[in-house]
Amino acid sequence: MSDKKPKKPQKLKARLPRGLVDRTPAEIAVTRVMVEKIREVYERYGFEPVETPAMEYTDALGKFLPDQDRPNEGVFSFQDDDEQWISLRYDLTAPLARYVAENFDTLPKPYRSYRHGFVYRNEKPGPGRFRQFMQFDADTVGSASPAADAEMCMMAADTMEALGIPRGSYVVKVNNRKVLDGVMESIGLGGDENAGKRLTVLRAIDKLDKFPVEEIKKLLGPGRWDGGEEGKGDFTKGAELSPDNIVRVLDFVSGQGETWADVTQYKAPTNDEWNRTGAEMSSVTSLPEKPDAKFFYYNSRLLSQWFELVSSSEVGKQGIDELRQMLTLVESAGYGSARFRITAETIRGLEYYTGPVYEVELLLETKDEKGRPVRFGSVGGGGRYDGLVSRFRGEPVPATGFSIGVSRLQAALTMLGKIDTTPEFGPVVVVVMDRNEIAQYQKFVATLRNAGIRAELYLGNPKNNLGVQFKYADRRNSPCVVIQGGDEKAKGEVQIKDLIIGAEIAGASGDREDYLQKQADAQFAVKESELVDAVRKVLTRHNVPWAKN
Amino acid sequence: MSDKKPKKPQKLKARLPRGLVDRTPAEIAVTRVMVEKIREVYERYGFEPVETPAMEYTDALGKFLPDQDRPNEGVFSFQDDDEQWISLRYDLTAPLARYVAENFDTLPKPYRSYRHGFVYRNEKPGPGRFRQFMQFDADTVGSASPAADAEMCMMAADTMEALGIPRGSYVVKVNNRKVLDGVMESIGLGGDENAGKRLTVLRAIDKLDKFPVEEIKKLLGPGRWDGGEEGKGDFTKGAELSPDNIVRVLDFVSGQGETWADVTQYKAPTNDEWNRTGAEMSSVTSLPEKPDAKFFYYNSRLLSQWFELVSSSEVGKQGIDELRQMLTLVESAGYGSARFRITAETIRGLEYYTGPVYEVELLLETKDEKGRPVRFGSVGGGGRYDGLVSRFRGEPVPATGFSIGVSRLQAALTMLGKIDTTPEFGPVVVVVMDRNEIAQYQKFVATLRNAGIRAELYLGNPKNNLGVQFKYADRRNSPCVVIQGGDEKAKGEVQIKDLIIGAEIAGASGDREDYLQKQADAQFAVKESELVDAVRKVLTRHNVPWAKN
Repeated sequence: MSDKKPKKPQKLKARLPRGLVDRTPAEIAVTRVMVEKIREVYERYGFEPVETPAMEYTDALGKFLPDQDRPNEGVFSFQDDDEQWISLRYDLTAPLARYVAENFDTLPKPYRSYRHGFVYRNEKPGPGRFRQFMQFDADTVGSASPAADAEMCMMAADTMEALGIPRGSYVVKVNNRKVLDGVMESIGLGGDENAGKRLTVLRAIDKLDKFPVEEIKKLLGPGRWDGGEEGKGDFTKGAELSPDNIVRVLDFVSGQGETWADVTQYKAPTNDEWNRTGAEMSSVTSLPEKPDAKFFYYNSRLLSQWFELVSSSEVGKQGIDELRQMLTLVESAGYGSARFRITAETIRGLEYYTGPVYEVELLLETKDEKGRPVRFGSVGGGGRYDGLVSRFRGEPVPATGFSIGVSRLQAALTMLGKIDTTPEFGPVVVVVMDRNEIAQYQKFVATLRNAGIRAELYLGNPKNNLGVQFKYADRRNSPCVVIQGGDEKAKGEVQIKDLIIGAEIAGASGDREDYLQKQADAQFAVKESELVDAVRKVLTRHNVPWAKN
Repeated sequence: MSDKKPKKPQKLKARLPRGLVDRTPAEIAVTRVMVEKIREVYERYGFEPVETPAMEYTDALGKFLPDQDRPNEGVFSFQDDDEQWISLRYDLTAPLARYVAENFDTLPKPYRSYRHGFVYRNEKPGPGRFRQFMQFDADTVGSASPAADAEMCMMAADTMEALGIPRGSYVVKVNNRKVLDGVMESIGLGGDENAGKRLTVLRAIDKLDKFPVEEIKKLLGPGRWDGGEEGKGDFTKGAELSPDNIVRVLDFVSGQGETWADVTQYKAPTNDEWNRTGAEMSSVTSLPEKPDAKFFYYNSRLLSQWFELVSSSEVGKQGIDELRQMLTLVESAGYGSARFRITAETIRGLEYYTGPVYEVELLLETKDEKGRPVRFGSVGGGGRYDGLVSRFRGEPVPATGFSIGVSRLQAALTMLGKIDTTPEFGPVVVVVMDRNEIAQYQKFVATLRNAGIRAELYLGNPKNNLGVQFKYADRRNSPCVVIQGGDEKAKGEVQIKDLIIGAEIAGASGDREDYLQKQADAQFAVKESELVDAVRKVLTRHNVPWAKN
């Protein structure tokens, strides 16, 4: 950096590190409402709160000890006095696993808890990607039952609706890692020795939302050239599956090759069709009533297809059975399959998942600044992580959890116009006419506050004229100001100026009678003793929420 | 560390770094209530919310760049990819100063905002001292008026009362850094060249709550031997003030040499006494009504004494004048001086204060585990920090703020028994009699939840007998369980078991009629369709807060 006057003391620059943001009053208010609504749903499901601190030992988070050269890879880390590495939590699941393991003997089991808070990722920030954001999690530890997973999916649906997202505008997508494992086994990629190849296949599947199927085929087979033809652009090595196995994988991932919108167009299935779904394997032996029948049919039929695909794999069949049980429970609880889609799409990046995985996707669209449609994608998800608590315990501890990305969901709801962004009213401002009377003005302020009315004394330079003081009240979105000059004081009165009607008059061109009435409402004098009543009248007039006593 | 079997993989230890704690449901519930009550008061005072992230550039926090050898001295710090140092916030004031400076042109001025959140200190933890704790702050930036400081003191008082601490059980202690500066000037310690000596004097004053006055005299004079006599123990170098100047400092710090409890014993002052307080300097020219008169008199008289002490110092006199204005405003707002004590005791450690400083002290006592009385001391405080925003702006920006130590105050309220620690009711538990009927049980759960009742399916091993399942419900503090076995199912009924009455019967020895009635209440059958009403009857019987629809 070149600086022509190096001797001059540099003014400190006020700025935040990238990927971090300040939160405005409106954003904070929305988060509060969202958190309360989510909490209400989670508590209705029988979860109780527990909170862990923002930092943990790095090893307890399941991260390897940071490389000394890159101590902050992915997580923010520092060394304690005793040289042990500490990291900021990157999610709320790993700290919960530590908490449960530490308090295992005293907790009721299954242990059902929820928590919300900020998590920290030391990643390259981008649009909508931050290094600090809020999550809201619920977990059931100590239950291996698919009922625990089904419950998470129902809770995800209930939470979306509690937040004002109508049915049909979201879908809970469900998959099972065991089915994925079964598919891998069925194409000869079982066992530890094939871990690398499995990863290549999973990465190829994960590209389904980016590339057409032809490109996925290349990734599953010989590999793929970025530029579209051999020798052009970068080369991504393929999984080198045989053509048969490529078909198997594609059969798995494509399902019936239909979008969820396609399913909406279905006719209800016939009994004959239903009987071909392998429905007899499930305890729901008949189709639910319309309009959910077609969704239930779709999901059931997909499971039947998958069942054939993984029939040689025990773990794969177990995975299918778990999904069937979940589907049955969701259906019998009256949640309807229209909100739940079994799909191979849902992989969930985190390595610790071991069974059912699920995520909530918003189906609503909005437009970006260039008018292109934008889908928000996943706003929450989770799954079964049977190995996470076991790391500490040396015994199996099954667990499943669901996490809402509060910050992400809030951004989505805001863009979709689902959030009331009307600014809140500011306080009543008592202006300063005479700086020697500040004690008297402060008394008015205290009187209003004691009556439960938000109020403040103008605390800017008391020499500022009324125009400046009114402008301040406007900036604060104050409904009214209280004024007492020498004349009023002599009469034991105060003036109330209604800033909202005042602004209306200034811009309006109504008839004279209306104007006069409005002018009378816009500013009027009352006895000092009537201050509270008069201010409350103005607040009530404008539906100020804190107007009531 | 010696390990006899180094090859065996070590089980990961579940533990938190020292100075960090998990928070239980009861603690979380109390914090929520406290935060809502504080928020309500702050909003009544016209403050609006704003939040900054947990981390900032280290230099923006006002910390020097950490020494590479001790990067975590006092704060938790790490280097970003671009080598810049980032720290976790250690309070909420420094980040606010950065926020205001960054958004200076768009914010209304004065800018009045509040925020709460966790702050992080990389210090040696001890009893009641944590490395993560919660603060709740309010700040007025852009007002030089003592009215802004007086308001903070009144808000502190209102907040204590909103939190259930009765008047008389707390006091807001007020001092002014300018008066301290004036005292320093009056003993010849003005100017940059005496900064070191001033610090020695301040440190001696700060020891007032630990040492008797005789020991303070040594610290102000030749120095002090830890062991009580020359050559014994460690030696602390003294400020080497002249005997006259030691008397001046002691006159300042001792006030009238009375405790606040002494003042409570005062008779009301006579008009003659009042006239000797220099009352004419204040705009309150007459004594307030009893019972506050004696407190007002005490404070006013102390200010008169201080005024004489610093009469040679312009800044000192300015400090006295500010305190007088604050006292007048507080008095005329009806807050009464009994809650506000002017005192030299309140120094406030942070270096950035430039004017009035204040802190709230709880006067309530409790006993420690050895039966010794424990005073909680300060649970919040703040002051004027005119230089903090200026660092970024290169122009004067006056500011004052108040911070409540939420975690500390919560600990105090809990020890004082001011907090209801009755555990919350857990959910209604639907037990599993027949694992093939789980879909039916899940349906009951969904029915209850849809009626707004907290409920869950027993998700532990479905093979567990009813005893284990009831024990789980007890552990969750569930008011009742829902049971459906084969007999009930055949009749289309469910059994409701009231666990609270059940526990009463188990322990009671009442008369037979009473017992039979209780037994009938403790467990009864209803039609499936009456499930919600029957459960709600039990919930209402026990005043469960979420019983109502």
